[in-house]
Amino acid sequence: MRPKKLRKLPEQAYTIRRQIRFSHSDPAGIVFFAEFFRMFNDLFEDWLENCLGINFARQFQVEERMFPLVHVNADFKEARKMGQKLDLTLLVTKLGKSSIAYDIIGHDGYLEILSASFVTCVASKRTMKSIEIPDEIRAQIEEYMERCAPNAKRS
Amino acid sequence: MRPKKLRKLPEQAYTIRRQIRFSHSDPAGIVFFAEFFRMFNDLFEDWLENCLGINFARQFQVEERMFPLVHVNADFKEARKMGQKLDLTLLVTKLGKSSIAYDIIGHDGYLEILSASFVTCVASKRTMKSIEIPDEIRAQIEEYMERCAPNAKRS
Amino acid sequence: MRPKKLRKLPEQAYTIRRQIRFSHSDPAGIVFFAEFFRMFNDLFEDWLENCLGINFARQFQVEERMFPLVHVNADFKEARKMGQKLDLTLLVTKLGKSSIAYDIIGHDGYLEILSASFVTCVASKRTMKSIEIPDEIRAQIEEYMERCAPNAKRS
Amino acid sequence: MRPKKLRKLPEQAYTIRRQIRFSHSDPAGIVFFAEFFRMFNDLFEDWLENCLGINFARQFQVEERMFPLVHVNADFKEARKMGQKLDLTLLVTKLGKSSIAYDIIGHDGYLEILSASFVTCVASKRTMKSIEIPDEIRAQIEEYMERCAPNAKRS
Repeated sequence: MRPKKLRKLPEQAYTIRRQIRFSHSDPAGIVFFAEFFRMFNDLFEDWLENCLGINFARQFQVEERMFPLVHVNADFKEARKMGQKLDLTLLVTKLGKSSIAYDIIGHDGYLEILSASFVTCVASKRTMKSIEIPDEIRAQIEEYMERCAPNAKRS
Repeated sequence: MRPKKLRKLPEQAYTIRRQIRFSHSDPAGIVFFAEFFRMFNDLFEDWLENCLGINFARQFQVEERMFPLVHVNADFKEARKMGQKLDLTLLVTKLGKSSIAYDIIGHDGYLEILSASFVTCVASKRTMKSIEIPDEIRAQIEEYMERCAPNAKRS
Repeated sequence: MRPKKLRKLPEQAYTIRRQIRFSHSDPAGIVFFAEFFRMFNDLFEDWLENCLGINFARQFQVEERMFPLVHVNADFKEARKMGQKLDLTLLVTKLGKSSIAYDIIGHDGYLEILSASFVTCVASKRTMKSIEIPDEIRAQIEEYMERCAPNAKRS
Repeated sequence: MRPKKLRKLPEQAYTIRRQIRFSHSDPAGIVFFAEFFRMFNDLFEDWLENCLGINFARQFQVEERMFPLVHVNADFKEARKMGQKLDLTLLVTKLGKSSIAYDIIGHDGYLEILSASFVTCVASKRTMKSIEIPDEIRAQIEEYMERCAPNAKRS
C-alpha cells in the first residue's frame, strides 16, 4: 500500500494499457486481486502473440504445449479504482532450460502500482510434465531480452 | 511442479476441502491459476467467519473495514484436475500493527500441492489507508495462533 | 427488480444454499450477474453429482460427454447483497432426445429472488455435436422428475 | 447449437471484436458460458463509454447510478474456441421510462454464433430502486437508435 516512483523501463519493453472495468471491481470499487492474476495471464498471452508472434491457441491446440505458472511473488502497492487506467509491462528476467522467469510491473507512467515476479514453465499437455523450451520460442524470447537489455539477464 | 511430502500441520489449524469444479478449470482440465487466488480469498473469508466468528460482510458494510492483499508469494507444485479434491489450510505466521501474515497450504493429506504466503492489511473503506487491527479482531487471531502453536510465531 | 411470493416447490426438489461472498460481489456490493451464471453452472454440476449420482468429471474425462448450455431465459427480481443467503432449487421441466430443460429458482424461502429457464444439451467432446442422452443418465433424470412431480412434465 | 446466417445489421451499430482467450475457456477449450455474460456486461460498458460518451465509472461513483440487469434471454448457437474471433454488436430495441432493452448479436460476419435480449434498468445506488432515465442519457440512446434505424423501435 505504498506506491513508489516507477523504475526506468526499457523503451522496447512490451506494455499494454488496461482500463479498470466494473467486472474487475470488488465491493470497495477497486480491482479484486484475483482479477489482477487474470490480467497477468492475459498479458503473458498477449506478449507471446502480439510481441513474439507465437500463437498461443496454436501452441495449446496443435503443438500440445502449455505454460503453467509455478511461482509468483507479487506486491500490491496501491489500489486501482474502476475507471482508472493501468499500464502493465512485461520484462523477461531469466530463460531456463524449460522455464521462463519474468516480471510484470503495473504503473501509471510515474508510480509503481504493483510489481510481480513469475516463473512459468513450458509443459506437455499430454504428460503434464515440463519440456525443454522449443528452439523457435527460445529464439524469440532471447531476441526480446536483447531488445530490452540491459534490464534483462540471459541465463 | 514438484509435489513434496506434506509438512506437519497443527491439528487445530483451519482447513477447508474444495472439489475442483468445471468452473475452476482451464482448457488443460486443471485449475486456472487465477481461480486459486479466488479460492484463497474465499478461504480467508471463511476463516474469519467460521473459525474466528468475525462476520466479513458486517466488517465491510457496517464497520467499513476492508482486508486488502498487499503481498503474496506462491508456489504451485502440482496441478489439480477437475473432480479432484484439494484441502486448504490457513496458518497465521505474524500479526503486525495493521497487517496479518499467513500461509495457505494446499494438500491432499499426504502431498503439498501448493503453498503460499500472504500479507493482508486492515484498512478503512473510506480513506483506503491501513488502520490498527481492532482489539476484538486481534484477540481472536492471537487465540487462533495459540491454538495452532508452535507453528505460528507471535509478533 | 420486483420480488414476488415464492411458488410452491416440491419437497424432493434439489436445493443448495449459497452465502453471497466478497468474490461474488460487484462495486454495488451485490452479486455481479455473470457470477449468477457461474452459480447456475455449479448447481447443475452439484445436482448431477450429489442428487443423481452422476460423476461430472468422469462424464467429461472418461465418457467424453459435455453439457453445453444452448438457451437461457432469466429474470432477476431482487438483488442479493454480500453476506445474504440464497437458496437455489433445480426443477427439470422437459427431457428431450438430447436436451434437458430445467428451471432454477433463487429464493430465501419466502420470496423469489430470481428465476431462470435453461436448455442444456448432451454433446460429444470429440465431435462437439449433440448426442442422445445415454440411458443411465435418462433413467436418473426421469426418476428425479417423478420425485418432484407434479411440478415437472415428462416429454 | 445450430448457427444460422447472420441477420442484416445496421452499419452504424456498435460492434466490438473479441479474441477468445485462455482465461475465457473451459475444459472443452471453448468459452465458458458465464464468461459470455461477463463479455456482455463489458460490451454494455464499452457502448456507454465509447459510443455514447457516457463515463460508466463516473455514473457509478459520482452520479450514484447503476445499471442492473433485470432480464436476459440468450441463445447459444455455436461454440467459440480459444483463438477464434467473435464480433459482438449491440442494438437498442426499446427505451422505457427507466429501462433499456437491447440485443447483443455474436457473429463472425457471416454466421450468428449467439444472440441475446436484455433489459437493464437505471437505478439509484443508494436506494437500489429504479429511477427515470436521466435526460442526457436518454438523448444519447435515442440518437443511437436513430443512427441504427430502421432496426430499432422507439418507445
